[in-house]
Amino acid sequence: MQAGAVAPAIFAPVITGRAEAGSDLILVCEHAANTFPAPWGDLGLTAEQRQAHIAWDPGALGLMQALAARLDATSVAATVSRLIYDCNRAPDMPGAMPTKSEVHEVPGNAAITPTQRAARAAAIYVPFHDALHGLIAERIALGRRPVLVTIHSFTPVYFGQKRAVEFGVIHDADDRLARAILAGAEATSGLTCGLNAPYSAADDVTHTLRLHATPYGLANAMLEIRNDLIASPEAEQAMADRLAPVIAAALTDIKKEG
Amino acid sequence: MQAGAVAPAIFAPVITGRAEAGSDLILVCEHAANTFPAPWGDLGLTAEQRQAHIAWDPGALGLMQALAARLDATSVAATVSRLIYDCNRAPDMPGAMPTKSEVHEVPGNAAITPTQRAARAAAIYVPFHDALHGLIAERIALGRRPVLVTIHSFTPVYFGQKRAVEFGVIHDADDRLARAILAGAEATSGLTCGLNAPYSAADDVTHTLRLHATPYGLANAMLEIRNDLIASPEAEQAMADRLAPVIAAALTDIKKEG
Repeated sequence: MQAGAVAPAIFAPVITGRAEAGSDLILVCEHAANTFPAPWGDLGLTAEQRQAHIAWDPGALGLMQALAARLDATSVAATVSRLIYDCNRAPDMPGAMPTKSEVHEVPGNAAITPTQRAARAAAIYVPFHDALHGLIAERIALGRRPVLVTIHSFTPVYFGQKRAVEFGVIHDADDRLARAILAGAEATSGLTCGLNAPYSAADDVTHTLRLHATPYGLANAMLEIRNDLIASPEAEQAMADRLAPVIAAALTDIKKEG
Repeated sequence: MQAGAVAPAIFAPVITGRAEAGSDLILVCEHAANTFPAPWGDLGLTAEQRQAHIAWDPGALGLMQALAARLDATSVAATVSRLIYDCNRAPDMPGAMPTKSEVHEVPGNAAITPTQRAARAAAIYVPFHDALHGLIAERIALGRRPVLVTIHSFTPVYFGQKRAVEFGVIHDADDRLARAILAGAEATSGLTCGLNAPYSAADDVTHTLRLHATPYGLANAMLEIRNDLIASPEAEQAMADRLAPVIAAALTDIKKEG
């Protein structure tokens, strides 16, 4: 390297898209990537396992970016597999660095020490949430109180059971936005919808909302799309076409209600 | 400067003390300092105003450090006056960069723009809370779930009214630790105690607790000591001698209750 050059980071733990977007909406995708960078590597998983829903939320990143473009939103995405660190889990939750996901053992997580857990949290979880917090604080200071929506996908078959729900809307303490999105989706999207399905806050899936939306009283919701409906770039765009007007209308609704 | 030297930061927005402490207690002092660094400067305030309780919580830093030594706790302190940015306030709260505090106008805050507000939040509020969040996340990952206690002082006379309370214990959603500390202080400290006095969560004084303790379900409390009781280094030490056993006993109590 030349004098003064800085060694590149091993990986960037977060990618912010459309940072200068004009709307108040911030979209978040904690499970955007199935990347297994050094120093953690593949955790002893097969290539097939690293492609599967246990490693990430397939389609969620593409859908989020398509929604961000349609809704003039900023997006924040994690960049490593949830099996290395799941940014939607606090560091002491079993799912943060799971030893098993659905029916799959995760060998590289079987015997990690507290120090290794702390190192993963420091390298992945903390900078991801610092970036999101910095963005939220900036927007609030500018007088642009954001609305926070997390984008997820779920597998059509889980523990051998088929799931009928196609679109789930999940809320934590504040259900205003979730109920507005659900009502719109039921009325116009043609999707089989569910409130707090296939998961709910009781399953510890609303960590990001609790960490960033609740303390500031920001409207928020978590969206779950069945991943067979967003299995190609074209399908992601088509789903964004269906959901963007629903989300836009819900944002208008809750603004009217104050 | 020599080649390779790095220009010093204008100021460090947070100071962590006893980072390697052995207990689970983290003490926080958002109003530790009455420092008015560049680029903000004195905000047009007189030297007397910059010494007064509107600029900081006199005695709180010394008390916190004395408690940290007795309780083997880590401490986190802000380093600039609350009148430049009050780290216990969200960026859109009036008190974050107040135009008036008690009876005192703050000229330097009278006409700040949204961009200037965002710059202060980015320089002071965000790194303060990032440091605290990083510490909390690390401890949780290590299996050492912290307990969070914020240390404040209040003026004996406010808007011309004398305050009888000497020691206030304030809680947010989770009142376990606050009630345990209050019971102990009433029984043994000899101080005139108050629950949610002289302020309560309804006055927006529990922002730090909401941001860092509530999302993780960490036990927490905010302590307020009347500042005439901690007006010298000796008085700070004496107050720490009175309060440390009360806090230690309360921590033991809530651990027993689980």
